[in-house]
Amino acid sequence: MPLLSLRELGELKIIDILEQKLGASARMAVGYGDDISAITLGGNRVAVLKTDMLVGSTDVPPGMTMRQAARKAVVANVSDLAAKGVRPLAGIVALGLPSRLNKTDIEEIGTGLRSASREYGFDLIGGDTNESRDLTISVALFAIADRRRLVLRSGACDGDLVAVTGGFGATAAGLKELIEHGKRADQLSPSLYRAVFVPRAQLDVGLRLAASRTLTSSIDSSDGLAWSLHELTKASRIGIRINEVPTSREVEQFATRYSDRAEDLALYGGEEYHLVVTVKPERIRSAERAARGRLRTIGVVTRRFRGVRLKWGERDIRIPMKGWEHFKSK
Amino acid sequence: MPLLSLRELGELKIIDILEQKLGASARMAVGYGDDISAITLGGNRVAVLKTDMLVGSTDVPPGMTMRQAARKAVVANVSDLAAKGVRPLAGIVALGLPSRLNKTDIEEIGTGLRSASREYGFDLIGGDTNESRDLTISVALFAIADRRRLVLRSGACDGDLVAVTGGFGATAAGLKELIEHGKRADQLSPSLYRAVFVPRAQLDVGLRLAASRTLTSSIDSSDGLAWSLHELTKASRIGIRINEVPTSREVEQFATRYSDRAEDLALYGGEEYHLVVTVKPERIRSAERAARGRLRTIGVVTRRFRGVRLKWGERDIRIPMKGWEHFKSK
Repeated sequence: MPLLSLRELGELKIIDILEQKLGASARMAVGYGDDISAITLGGNRVAVLKTDMLVGSTDVPPGMTMRQAARKAVVANVSDLAAKGVRPLAGIVALGLPSRLNKTDIEEIGTGLRSASREYGFDLIGGDTNESRDLTISVALFAIADRRRLVLRSGACDGDLVAVTGGFGATAAGLKELIEHGKRADQLSPSLYRAVFVPRAQLDVGLRLAASRTLTSSIDSSDGLAWSLHELTKASRIGIRINEVPTSREVEQFATRYSDRAEDLALYGGEEYHLVVTVKPERIRSAERAARGRLRTIGVVTRRFRGVRLKWGERDIRIPMKGWEHFKSK
Repeated sequence: MPLLSLRELGELKIIDILEQKLGASARMAVGYGDDISAITLGGNRVAVLKTDMLVGSTDVPPGMTMRQAARKAVVANVSDLAAKGVRPLAGIVALGLPSRLNKTDIEEIGTGLRSASREYGFDLIGGDTNESRDLTISVALFAIADRRRLVLRSGACDGDLVAVTGGFGATAAGLKELIEHGKRADQLSPSLYRAVFVPRAQLDVGLRLAASRTLTSSIDSSDGLAWSLHELTKASRIGIRINEVPTSREVEQFATRYSDRAEDLALYGGEEYHLVVTVKPERIRSAERAARGRLRTIGVVTRRFRGVRLKWGERDIRIPMKGWEHFKSK
């Protein structure tokens, strides 16, 4: 039997294999497969750890500066803490730098890292520098949290409302402009430009939502809206029916111009850092207040089926678990 | 003026630029440029963070298996904690995987990570998987420590003894066998094989030495003995005179066979995970007991000069700050 290639395996199966090999431990306060990892420190205090690696060949679109790439590497990590309602305390960064870079590139990477850590109120306190064929910015974040306050992926229950912190699809539209339609970065509309090059993690909203204690589950949407909804259904062992696909005016306009479907861009695009949460119906007003107008209800949790469906007139359409998957996505 | 390339800058200058851009913070319990980073948690408790990235194209010699590479990635991180006398509590791993790898490679990486974390008594509790052109294993470790017990690089004083936890040069000799002399891994002597493919971090010795409270400074030797001695002199603002270069019988034999200098292999080889420490002379017996015979005194700290010198008959020879430096070393 020929050995399976990573492309045939796909990222999900690769992660499966690694988790099996690493095994679980009694000290793990959060199981594998949530947005963050955590270890018990005693009582209800846990140390939260998160690492997310930015790789030049897959995560840096044409036209992105070194400063923006470094900032994005931090944002991707902060976004996962935001989804759990945890404020980062400190971070470290391991860099893999291709030797073709120059001094200005290094300064820009330093500036991007610094501005991102300031933006989210923590310090990057050390790291490691290496030579690599592929630009690699591997950020690791640390936080302390109360185990009982962490909003996991696994708490969604039948009847909960499903809500998101913004419209989806702008990053996918922006990337299509750049890669498929040959636009330069400066030719993008401001909102598509921001989505691709200066994405923001929803840390403030995530912290306020967690503090409001209105959430039953939460996930960040960096692998795409459809993917994130599916992850919630798997972790919580429920189904989700959405009534609408949250997009934005710019995404609709882009879709009209290029005969794309705005819903597809929003569902399967990925690289967006909104939060996808579930809330008890009687708590939705409190959650909306906590999110200061940033929360948009798009559906409901159900135990009648597993998976994700979109209400479409009188029928339900199944939404496949599709999105950015390393090794499988091009 | 042409932009400086990374090769012209060298790793030291690159780190300089990054540290300047990141800036220092009042919450940093240990400054940049020590083996680990730490942030104050309140009182004397600090969170210790460490990241070290293994990169396939520079850190994986010919003949090293994926399991060994994954284990080495962990060892390099543990070694830095060992030098500070800190036991790792948990770790996370970000992987960059070339798509040419197969399922068995992933299993081997998982097994290597798991066996290494077991070897040093902690759990790897999560991570991130990515596609990359260069195999990348970026480990981040977390620990809790008492700030007052951390053995930093900066405490060496005039008159202290300089000691190491083992002989040097075996890794350099083994790498030369593989790369310059075309040997296969299975043709190496057991001790050179172990040095290259199954290096060990001196965690037990490091913890016992720190607990004995006999050390005034400490560093791990992963960039080479000469490099580590120089780092101690820079951090402690002193000079070091060594009376001998600690090697081993295998290194001497290798040097004789190939007309190499055993001292050069030991001083400038790098990729070894011994500890280099300084001890008050009146405490050296306690330190030796704590290290259970693993400590070898090789010199003395002096304020008469800066830098590192080797006593050679009646004269002193200056030992240059040479070793493995990313971007500059080939």
